[in-house]
Amino acid sequence: MSGKIEKEQEREQKRKLEEKLEKSLLEALHVYAESDFYPLHMPGHKRQIFEMPMKQFKNPFGIDITEIEGFDNLHHAEGILKSCMEHAAKVYGTEKTYFLVNGSSCGILAAVSACTAPGQSFLMARNCHKSVYHGVFLRNLKAEYIYPQIFEKLWIQGGILADSVDNCLTQMEERGNCPSAVLIVSPTYDGLVSDVRGIAEAVHRHGSILIVDEAHGAHFPFSFAFPESAISMGADVVIQSLHKTLPSMTQTAVLHVCSDRVDLGMLEYFLQIYQSSSPSYVFMAAMDTCIRYMERSGEKKLEELRKNLDWFYERVQHLRKIQVIRGQRELVEKCGIVDVDCSKILIYMGKTGKNGAWLADRMREEYHMELEMVQEQYGLALMSLMDTKRGFERLAAALCELDAEILKEEKEEKQGSDVGLRKQYEENGCKGEEWYPEEKVTAGTEIATAEIVCTIQEAVYSKKRCILWKDALGEISGEFVYVYPPGIPILAPGERISENILNQVRKAALAGLPLQGMRDREGRQIEVIDR
Amino acid sequence: MSGKIEKEQEREQKRKLEEKLEKSLLEALHVYAESDFYPLHMPGHKRQIFEMPMKQFKNPFGIDITEIEGFDNLHHAEGILKSCMEHAAKVYGTEKTYFLVNGSSCGILAAVSACTAPGQSFLMARNCHKSVYHGVFLRNLKAEYIYPQIFEKLWIQGGILADSVDNCLTQMEERGNCPSAVLIVSPTYDGLVSDVRGIAEAVHRHGSILIVDEAHGAHFPFSFAFPESAISMGADVVIQSLHKTLPSMTQTAVLHVCSDRVDLGMLEYFLQIYQSSSPSYVFMAAMDTCIRYMERSGEKKLEELRKNLDWFYERVQHLRKIQVIRGQRELVEKCGIVDVDCSKILIYMGKTGKNGAWLADRMREEYHMELEMVQEQYGLALMSLMDTKRGFERLAAALCELDAEILKEEKEEKQGSDVGLRKQYEENGCKGEEWYPEEKVTAGTEIATAEIVCTIQEAVYSKKRCILWKDALGEISGEFVYVYPPGIPILAPGERISENILNQVRKAALAGLPLQGMRDREGRQIEVIDR
Repeated sequence: MSGKIEKEQEREQKRKLEEKLEKSLLEALHVYAESDFYPLHMPGHKRQIFEMPMKQFKNPFGIDITEIEGFDNLHHAEGILKSCMEHAAKVYGTEKTYFLVNGSSCGILAAVSACTAPGQSFLMARNCHKSVYHGVFLRNLKAEYIYPQIFEKLWIQGGILADSVDNCLTQMEERGNCPSAVLIVSPTYDGLVSDVRGIAEAVHRHGSILIVDEAHGAHFPFSFAFPESAISMGADVVIQSLHKTLPSMTQTAVLHVCSDRVDLGMLEYFLQIYQSSSPSYVFMAAMDTCIRYMERSGEKKLEELRKNLDWFYERVQHLRKIQVIRGQRELVEKCGIVDVDCSKILIYMGKTGKNGAWLADRMREEYHMELEMVQEQYGLALMSLMDTKRGFERLAAALCELDAEILKEEKEEKQGSDVGLRKQYEENGCKGEEWYPEEKVTAGTEIATAEIVCTIQEAVYSKKRCILWKDALGEISGEFVYVYPPGIPILAPGERISENILNQVRKAALAGLPLQGMRDREGRQIEVIDR
Repeated sequence: MSGKIEKEQEREQKRKLEEKLEKSLLEALHVYAESDFYPLHMPGHKRQIFEMPMKQFKNPFGIDITEIEGFDNLHHAEGILKSCMEHAAKVYGTEKTYFLVNGSSCGILAAVSACTAPGQSFLMARNCHKSVYHGVFLRNLKAEYIYPQIFEKLWIQGGILADSVDNCLTQMEERGNCPSAVLIVSPTYDGLVSDVRGIAEAVHRHGSILIVDEAHGAHFPFSFAFPESAISMGADVVIQSLHKTLPSMTQTAVLHVCSDRVDLGMLEYFLQIYQSSSPSYVFMAAMDTCIRYMERSGEKKLEELRKNLDWFYERVQHLRKIQVIRGQRELVEKCGIVDVDCSKILIYMGKTGKNGAWLADRMREEYHMELEMVQEQYGLALMSLMDTKRGFERLAAALCELDAEILKEEKEEKQGSDVGLRKQYEENGCKGEEWYPEEKVTAGTEIATAEIVCTIQEAVYSKKRCILWKDALGEISGEFVYVYPPGIPILAPGERISENILNQVRKAALAGLPLQGMRDREGRQIEVIDR
C-alpha cells in the first residue's frame, strides 16, 4: 500500500518537473520574480526593481539599439561610450576603465592575453576562477601556481602571501623564466582580501605586471566600511564584476588599468576579440547607470549595508549549533590577509551534524531564501547594498529557527538510535559508495598541490581515455575537475593525479557537492592522457 | 560679420556635443527611444516594445537572476536551459542548438577553435567577419582564402562558388595540408546567399567540416518567402545572430550543429571559454522567447514582411536618380549564387553624384530614419518582420523626395558652375588630399587579393613600426584594416601591401567611409612589420 502511494508521489513529481520544463524560460523567471523568494545571492541588485537605479529601466527592448550615429562603438569608442568610460575612470581614479559585456571572464582572458606572449611562463594563484585557466590554455602558457593559505578551522582558502609571490618569482627568475605577468584573485569568493600592496611591490620588483581578479569586490572602492580595492593598492590591471555586488545586470563588468605598465593597444585588441562585435546597449547603459549611482549614493548605501551587517552578526552570534563567524579580526591578526569583506556571510554547519547542502535545501524549501553557494561545511549568503533590513531579518530568523530545531533534534536523537553524518549523505542520494567502495570521510583539509607534467593546451590535445576514479592514481589528468561554485579547479589538464587529489575529489562527491568538468556527469570516471 | 556667425554656430555645436557627452548613456537612449526616429537597422525587434514578444519583458532586473536551484547552468545544462535548447533544436531541425550570450562572435570563435588544432591549415571566405580572423589569430591557423565574386555593376561582393571551394581544397590536399574545416559567410551583409548545398558536398568530399556564418539569415528557417537556411543545405555548423533579423536582444545568437561530424565535447569546451561564466538570464529568456514566437508566428509575420517588401520595391522602381534594385532574378540567373534576401534593401546612389554617406545624413537629419550601413555607392536598409507598413511608407516617401530633389538640383547645376563629386568630398571634410596628394578616384572594383607572408599570429607578435600609407607599398601589414560596417578586412596582419590594396584603402578614405583597425585613427599611417 505504501509502495503505491510512493509511486503516486513519484509520478506527481515527474509530472510537475515535466510541466516546468515545458514552460518557457521567461514564464519560469516571471513566476520566480513574483514569488516571495528572497535572494541571498548575486546579482547585487537583488531584484529591487522599484529602487534606483533599476527603476530607470523599463522595457529593455526600447533602449536596445546598435552602433548608430551618435551612439559610438564600444570597440573604437570616440563619443558617448568613450565619455562614459572616462567618467568611470574618473570615479575609480584609474588610468583607464573599460566596460565589459561578456562578464569578468572576458576581462580576465583579455588581461592574461595582453600581458603574455604565446608559450610564455605565467604565475597565478591556484584558487583562480576557471577563466584564468582558459586564458592559460588559449595562450599555451607554462603556468606555475601560488597556493593560498588554508584556514583549517574555517574550511576556507585564505589569502596569497606577498612572500610566497616573491619566492616564486625569485625561483622562476633563477630558472630563467620570470613571467611577464602574475594573476591573483582578491577578495576570494568567501571575502578574504590578500595583501595586494605587498604583492604588487614584489611583482614590480621582478619587473612583472600584477593582474588582480577583484570580481567579488566591486563595492570596495566606494566606502571605507569595506576593504580597500586593489585599484589603490598598486595592482596594474583590476577586473571587477559589476553584477556580483553592485546594482548592475548579470554579465556586466569593468576592467581597470591602473598604471602605465600595460600595453593598451594589445589590451584593446584582445577586448575586441573576446567580446561580441554587437555589444548590448542595455548592458552598457546598466554599467554606466550603476557607476553613476555608486558615485552619488554608494557611500551612504554601503554604510547602511554595514549597519545591517553589524545588526545581523550581533543577532546570530549566540546560536548554539549553526555558527556565523565574523572572522575579521581573528583572521587579520593571525594571518597574512589584510582584511575580510563581511558582506559575505559564512554560515557554518560543522557542529550541527548537517552539511551545507542541507542548509541550502531547508532555507529554500521552508524559508524561500536562496543561498549564493554551499560547501560541505558551510553556506554562503552574499549581501549587497540593495538588501533590505527585512531581508536581514528573514535570514536571521531562519537561522535562529533552524538552530533551535537542530538542537531539539539532537536531544531526541541521543535517546534514539545513532543516526550519523553518513546516514544523511545516503538519504541525500549521494552515490559515493558506489564509485569508491572503500571510502571513509577523512578530515584532511589541505589543498593538494598537483605535479605539472605538461601545459594545459598540450594535455587538451593529447590522446585521452576514460578510466574509473579508483584506477586514476598516478595518471595525468586530461580535463578540469572542480566544484562549482566557486569554480576553482582541483585538477587541471596536464597534472598528475595524486592520493591527495583523489581524497579531495572523493570528499566533495560524498558531500553531494556539484563536481563539474568531467565528461562523465555521474562523476565515476575521469579522462586521462593515454600514454 | 559672417565669420562671427560661423564661430557662434561652432560654439553652439560644441556646447550641444558637450551637453550630450555629459548625459548618461541611459538618458541618451531614453531620449532616442522617445523620439520619432525610425530604425532601418538591426536589432530586428525594431524597438516595437508593445508587440509580442517584446511586450512580455518588463523591467529586465526583475528576471535577471544567477544559476540558482531550478534555473540550470548554461555551461552544464541539465534542466530548464537544456530543455529550452532542445526545444530550439526541434524547431530548427538540428542535432543540437546552443544559446550564445556573447553574440555570433563567440559562436564563430568556438566553432573555429573546436574544428581545428593550433597551427593547422584553414580555408575561409575572404569576406568573413572579423571574428573569424580572430579565431585564426588565436589558434595561429594557416589561413587560406576563397575570394567571393564581385558584382561590378552593383558594387557588392557576391557568393562563394562551390567550384572555387573544391579547387582550393584540391590544391591544399595536393600540398598535403587539407584543412579540417572550411568557413564561409552566407548570406552576405547585403543578403546574397551562396550555394551552400554545393559547397557542403565539396567540403565533405574532402573530409572537412563546413561552418557557415549565417548571422544575417536567422529568419531564413521560418518561411519559404525567404532563402533556404544553411541548416537544411548540408552545413555542419551554422551560427545565426538572433538580434539582427529576429525579435531578440542585441548580443544574442544561436549555434546549430547539423551533423555528427563535430566533436561536441570540444565545441562545448570552447563555448564555455568564449562566453561569460555568468551568462545573462535576460538574454537567455529573450532567445527562448524569440524562438517560441517564431515557431508560432514567424511564418505569418515573414509573409507580411514579404508583402511589405513587394509593395516597397514596386513603389520605388520608377525613381530617376536613386536606384533601388531588386536584384534577385538577375543575380541568380547570371551568377553562382542561389538566392537573394530582399529584406536587405540596397539603395544605390551611383547616378546621383552623391554617395552613401550623403544619403545616410539626409535620411537621418531630415527624415529621422537611420540606415543600417553605408558604402561609397549605396546605403543599406535592413527590414525585419517587426517593421510596420508605416515604416515602409516613410522610407519610400523619403527616397521619392530625395530623388526629386537630386533631379532638380542637377538641372540647376547644369546652368551653374561645375560642382563635381570631388567638391562634395572636400565639403564633407575628407582628408584624402592631405595623406595621399597624388590621389585620383578610379573605378577599380576588384577586391585586391593579398599575398600571405606569415600567419596573423606571427605578424601580431613581430616587431612593428608605423609608416605613412604613401610609403607602404611592398611592406607587410602588422594590423587589420577594414571598413566597418560590414567589418571585412582589406588587409590582415602578415599580408603584403600591394598597389591594388593601396587603391582600395585610398578609395574608402576619400569616400569618407569609416576606416578602422589602424592604430592611427586619422588613417594616415599603417603599422607594418619591421624587417
